[in-house]
Amino acid sequence: MKIIGENFIGDKISAKGNSVFSTFNPKKNVSTPWQFTEATPNEIEEACFLAYQAFKIYRKTKDNERALFLREIANEIDTIKELEEVYCTESGLSKERFQTEKERTLFQLRMFADFLESRNWRNEIIDNQAPILKKTYIPLGPVAVFGASNFPLAYSTAGGDTTSALAAGCPVIVKSHPMHAATNDLVAQAILRAVKNTNMPDGVFSSLNGISHQTGQALVLHRHIKAVGFTGSVQGGRALMDLAAGREEPIPVFAEMGSVNPVVISNLSLERKALFWAKAYADSISQGGGQFCTSPGIIIAEKNKHFDNFARLLSTELNKIETACMLHPNIKKQFINKRDHIIALDSVRSLSKIKKEHDNYIQQSVVIVDGNSFLKNKALREEVFGSFCVLVECKDQYEILDIIESLEGQLTGTIIAEKEEDIQDLKEVFQYRVGRLILNGVSTGVRVCKAMHHGGPYPASSTPFFTAVGTDAIKRWIRPITYQNFY
Amino acid sequence: MKIIGENFIGDKISAKGNSVFSTFNPKKNVSTPWQFTEATPNEIEEACFLAYQAFKIYRKTKDNERALFLREIANEIDTIKELEEVYCTESGLSKERFQTEKERTLFQLRMFADFLESRNWRNEIIDNQAPILKKTYIPLGPVAVFGASNFPLAYSTAGGDTTSALAAGCPVIVKSHPMHAATNDLVAQAILRAVKNTNMPDGVFSSLNGISHQTGQALVLHRHIKAVGFTGSVQGGRALMDLAAGREEPIPVFAEMGSVNPVVISNLSLERKALFWAKAYADSISQGGGQFCTSPGIIIAEKNKHFDNFARLLSTELNKIETACMLHPNIKKQFINKRDHIIALDSVRSLSKIKKEHDNYIQQSVVIVDGNSFLKNKALREEVFGSFCVLVECKDQYEILDIIESLEGQLTGTIIAEKEEDIQDLKEVFQYRVGRLILNGVSTGVRVCKAMHHGGPYPASSTPFFTAVGTDAIKRWIRPITYQNFY
Repeated sequence: MKIIGENFIGDKISAKGNSVFSTFNPKKNVSTPWQFTEATPNEIEEACFLAYQAFKIYRKTKDNERALFLREIANEIDTIKELEEVYCTESGLSKERFQTEKERTLFQLRMFADFLESRNWRNEIIDNQAPILKKTYIPLGPVAVFGASNFPLAYSTAGGDTTSALAAGCPVIVKSHPMHAATNDLVAQAILRAVKNTNMPDGVFSSLNGISHQTGQALVLHRHIKAVGFTGSVQGGRALMDLAAGREEPIPVFAEMGSVNPVVISNLSLERKALFWAKAYADSISQGGGQFCTSPGIIIAEKNKHFDNFARLLSTELNKIETACMLHPNIKKQFINKRDHIIALDSVRSLSKIKKEHDNYIQQSVVIVDGNSFLKNKALREEVFGSFCVLVECKDQYEILDIIESLEGQLTGTIIAEKEEDIQDLKEVFQYRVGRLILNGVSTGVRVCKAMHHGGPYPASSTPFFTAVGTDAIKRWIRPITYQNFY
Repeated sequence: MKIIGENFIGDKISAKGNSVFSTFNPKKNVSTPWQFTEATPNEIEEACFLAYQAFKIYRKTKDNERALFLREIANEIDTIKELEEVYCTESGLSKERFQTEKERTLFQLRMFADFLESRNWRNEIIDNQAPILKKTYIPLGPVAVFGASNFPLAYSTAGGDTTSALAAGCPVIVKSHPMHAATNDLVAQAILRAVKNTNMPDGVFSSLNGISHQTGQALVLHRHIKAVGFTGSVQGGRALMDLAAGREEPIPVFAEMGSVNPVVISNLSLERKALFWAKAYADSISQGGGQFCTSPGIIIAEKNKHFDNFARLLSTELNKIETACMLHPNIKKQFINKRDHIIALDSVRSLSKIKKEHDNYIQQSVVIVDGNSFLKNKALREEVFGSFCVLVECKDQYEILDIIESLEGQLTGTIIAEKEEDIQDLKEVFQYRVGRLILNGVSTGVRVCKAMHHGGPYPASSTPFFTAVGTDAIKRWIRPITYQNFY
């Protein structure tokens, strides 16, 4: 299968623009051989109009027809021989990670197919008093999807947003992530083959390239786009939220913008299980180079010898782990800037000796700061995207609660405690700051299922009402309607 | 029971400001004797801080405790002897309307009480694979509620927004509607007695007065306010949406902003049942002086002798109805301006002879315009708040579909057709423009129940996902959270 490098406007390939770009191989620290042409304003207009036309047909498809379509997408992706190599080349991620992520992508497509075939997934409600009322859900219209830099498959072209939007009955226009446009190219071709194989309307899926902000902005502002899915930074997500809110017809932006995923460890857990948790957290912090939205970035505990011991163990464990290749030189640069800014603060003590970080590799590391300084410095509460963790030593439990209360919205929060400890006050405060509260575990690893909530108060998500993972993710693309007197 | 005229900051009354205002008796065309003091910035701060403190306690109350609280509010409102007189004086609405609206208000309070006591109203989902996941819902935090001018009880101080937010576990600060601040005063006192009687935390309810925009703006911008409920004009709702979207932490605004509630009547219905539908629509258009968000403002049909006949009958029926007193001189003024602007258009022909409209009274009226002119002039598609209806005569069914497609989002749409007529194409297009689609009925009359959806695509509502009426209205004030490994 060939990488085409053009925009996919429905079943048409198109490269009318003059601006081209390549992706990058972070492990070899060189550009990839593939070139992509940015979409022009006319091509964007064309894709949006085609999606608008396709919506009129696609919204009438039956649930089982869309289920078939999703399964066909999964099957087509599964046949792309070049996918592993292209994915690994563009992302610096491992073959094992590719396998996991591909399986997750196929699983999501098939899960939504099953979901569409399940009984009354729309939760239709009928009130039989006269006049009879039936409440159900209908799709919103064409959706623009912005893929994640850190999930070239599972949260990109055929990822959670696209899959749930297509399941809902909404056409999708993907803005390919400029760091993995070749992976997008292959997956987009697979989706378009599935469109043909299952007789879905032309324009139900398009993919546009763009390395500048213009392509994305034009999509969000387009009158035919009715909702936006985004996974990325707070800065990027907020920019799209502001654009969408300022439209003549404001539209929802579902932005999953990451978080620092704070962890509170109890005294007893530190005393009894310091090594166990140090190993678990070294593992979690370093997973995928820390480039997960659920990567733990803050660990809070009372200052005492047990926390000192834990800090030492954690830093030792992290030192054992090989340096990690970041997704892109820009991501490494941002990581280094933010981390080194924090390390340079007077109140911060680094627990890891940073050795030479060649090319796009970074070293996993931890620092420690006292609770009072943490409360005073906003930079310490902001996400450092990559393997880096701030340990916060507090003078007492009240300071821990103060810190939790001072946090912005988070995707996850974690409490590590022993059975006999009373965690009620902490749980009470913590739950109002997070979308998922975990007891005695790690925040990385998000199970894809009905009971999952992946989202949280702003700025973890643009809106706290919806999840980006699991079957409830479909609720972002459908809205209620009541039919009166129709039955 | 005495009208106090001050702000209610929890159980404290407070009138530190210098700006006072009175409400107005539209029937007698004079000011009422009651005076109200606008809240100062300090009083607003005080109420928000108190609500924030109250939330920490209120969010821990049990469902049946909040159910008791809601029932007690209903009981307390039911004992206010002066309510009928004050309501009718301030609104110009009839005693019958007062009764209906009061019953609806008490019904809503008791319905949410029952709902809180129903099995698993949060739709908790448990996934028993390890680690166990439980997904449930928790309240957002303090909510600011802006009451509706046209529902001094059922969509104001203790109306749908307040009731559903209190049911959810959110403290409420009501910004009293300046047209019925005395009604608010009495109802606020009733709620505050219920707070005491059921030992709810001080600050779970406050009521602030304001005739300028400042009180409302300060509330929406306050860091402790986490969501907003609003019922009113598009202009007002959009202003609050923009304010909330521009905050450092954007918050949701649930604005129900009204609509023109278009109706399409088929040829056969006009031929067979012109008088029946003319009577039904004269009734619906004139109900409450047309001051309902579901008042039908556009009736569309094919141009032919049957539509001519219907137009004549409708105008005759409307002429039989007594002139209606509007809620306030400003509302009459806006009505007259918009209506007369439309009547003055070259393409528009008035079917009603407008007689003298004394004081705050207006005459119910209809005009007729051809489909092409309707499509060209945006003013004809905008809501004229009051009894006024635009008949649109189209050259064929395609023009009818064009018009429906050209409409902005609507709360309701109605199709009048005979059984043997094929309405599939119309239904298909119409449903994507409305929150509720009605067959052979009128849009006025919104049943309060689980199957009701009262909302719609923008600008009918700020967001299409939520309803302002029925038990699902509680979903605006709660958000999902997943507990991992807690059970």
